[in-house]
Amino acid sequence: MDAPSIASCVSPQEPAGKSDRQFAESLILYRNAVMKEMHQLIEGKRFERALARRLEEYPLRAGKGLRPALCLATCQAFGGGLMDALPSAVALELYHNAFLVHDDIEDESLHRRGAPTMHQKYGVAIAINVGDALNVLAMSPLLQNLRVIGLAKTLRVFNEIERMARESVEGQAMELEWVKNRRWQLSDRHYYLMTRKKTCWYTCITPCRIGAMIGGAGREQMRALVRFGLFLGIAFQIRDDLLNLTGEEGSYGKENAGDLWEGKRTLMLIELMHRTRGRERDRLIRVMSAARQDKTESQIQWVLAIMRKHGCLERARATLRRFAVRARSLFDRAMGDLPETSHKRFLEQMVNYVIDRDY
Amino acid sequence: MDAPSIASCVSPQEPAGKSDRQFAESLILYRNAVMKEMHQLIEGKRFERALARRLEEYPLRAGKGLRPALCLATCQAFGGGLMDALPSAVALELYHNAFLVHDDIEDESLHRRGAPTMHQKYGVAIAINVGDALNVLAMSPLLQNLRVIGLAKTLRVFNEIERMARESVEGQAMELEWVKNRRWQLSDRHYYLMTRKKTCWYTCITPCRIGAMIGGAGREQMRALVRFGLFLGIAFQIRDDLLNLTGEEGSYGKENAGDLWEGKRTLMLIELMHRTRGRERDRLIRVMSAARQDKTESQIQWVLAIMRKHGCLERARATLRRFAVRARSLFDRAMGDLPETSHKRFLEQMVNYVIDRDY
Repeated sequence: MDAPSIASCVSPQEPAGKSDRQFAESLILYRNAVMKEMHQLIEGKRFERALARRLEEYPLRAGKGLRPALCLATCQAFGGGLMDALPSAVALELYHNAFLVHDDIEDESLHRRGAPTMHQKYGVAIAINVGDALNVLAMSPLLQNLRVIGLAKTLRVFNEIERMARESVEGQAMELEWVKNRRWQLSDRHYYLMTRKKTCWYTCITPCRIGAMIGGAGREQMRALVRFGLFLGIAFQIRDDLLNLTGEEGSYGKENAGDLWEGKRTLMLIELMHRTRGRERDRLIRVMSAARQDKTESQIQWVLAIMRKHGCLERARATLRRFAVRARSLFDRAMGDLPETSHKRFLEQMVNYVIDRDY
Repeated sequence: MDAPSIASCVSPQEPAGKSDRQFAESLILYRNAVMKEMHQLIEGKRFERALARRLEEYPLRAGKGLRPALCLATCQAFGGGLMDALPSAVALELYHNAFLVHDDIEDESLHRRGAPTMHQKYGVAIAINVGDALNVLAMSPLLQNLRVIGLAKTLRVFNEIERMARESVEGQAMELEWVKNRRWQLSDRHYYLMTRKKTCWYTCITPCRIGAMIGGAGREQMRALVRFGLFLGIAFQIRDDLLNLTGEEGSYGKENAGDLWEGKRTLMLIELMHRTRGRERDRLIRVMSAARQDKTESQIQWVLAIMRKHGCLERARATLRRFAVRARSLFDRAMGDLPETSHKRFLEQMVNYVIDRDY
């Protein structure tokens, strides 16, 4: 990345190497706990073998497990136990993978986490069913909750999940309508609304809120987490979109500039539509409106070049920085009063990571 | 239909016209109650307009509403109130429609309930998301249950739904594997297993069990309903498959012989594979293995003709009759002791309808 570290703008520094290592190690520990539970869950259901293998296929690829980690750490930061939030964390990871499988079909994506997407490997029919099965599977840990956190919290988790899933399908519907209607006249506000629904709820708000609620957060704190998750989620998505354009395929796990092949409405592309005129704009719309298979590598490189020329990447980085600063201060408002535990520290590092990651 | 009435073989007759009319009227009343609730639910969520319209598109087509009717009538037959089972009935209908939308993509179906399938109208991406949204929507009435039937029963309904959804995706996975591996060497037992998972649970067993549980059924009765639902569901599916081959497009709502275009493994086709030899069998496998767009009308007519020649339709009707007789006697075992109410009478008529319907 040619931009300066964004985390360094918004958080007090400690020796970066040590902090990064601690964070990476905790992330792996959380992920292992979740993967183990998930594997046992799938084994326990005795699915037919081909289906069982496919259910674990996306989870076993090198996902980072941000969402369950966010849930588990928030629960502990609020004073709850790791095991209290584990079933919910497993459910979140299952919903996430279900969403990815269907999203990849909808966007006609070719790669996910460094390997072919589910539908590229097995066809659309099987991929739809694998996504549905992952959704079904998520119900079990939500019902297990009853034995772990009792009735009232079990039902509150269900309510949180319902909201999350609803926001996600609405955000998805919004984006798919733009594609269907070949709509390119969009503003930043459209992007924020779509991202709020499609990314923020299920990546940040719901994992945090479920963890916090199980850990015993009060009403004010629960409310503050919505705003925190909104800003963090939008920062996360802008970073994700930037990485898609500028990252290496190997480290990022998706094909390079896949968003341009797919015609995804990113902040950079929306801005580019505003900054181009005349024949350049006509060409841009023609290229971006074409189906994936009708685009060429040189067209994609051209779009990327004019994005750079018009300063769209730079502007997106500046926006990301603003959202990151705000997310940091909202983090303090939501969790500043909590004791200084390793879990709280992990969450601070997570905020820095989400907005400054380069993979 | 050229077969004799099957219901007449298995149930005492009353003047058919009056009984049929009563049954049809009750079905409409149940359907109206469910549709009204569903509409209010969708309105209440304030979805973006295009999405909201599409969510109601399959439900508003002339579906019969068998599953919610089964749930509502069973609940009342066991002494519960209509309103007690209404949220669960709405959830069942939402899951059913979600399943249909995804199933139509997976099978590449062209028509559903007399109109183009969702993905034919709006493309695969939007259709996948509409199916997902219908699934999400089903969570709300399940959570509403809390205020209607209390905590313990609310959680039992969730457990029933989890089982239903799991069996459905497994049955679907089984069928999709056969298609993927071009597997035609199947026995009746394969068909029964797939149908048990794909049809019986979500069409018969779960609607009945949820209704019965809410109405206050005991453990023995709950268990008996599994066996009743298995036989009824298989009879229902054989009838459905027969109608697909021999019904009129207008009255049945799907294209004629659509199952043959889609290469669906029906009891008739499985039997045909066993009864053909040599070049006839080679041609049959070649025709059935071809992708939908590579098949011709005359090939489909040829398959239908040799099915008739080899007596496969007749044999399926005989099998249907056996399952129907068994379903009737299991109905008596599960519900025979209940008072003779109009709801119980409706269920008896439903059994006759399911196995003897011609639309």
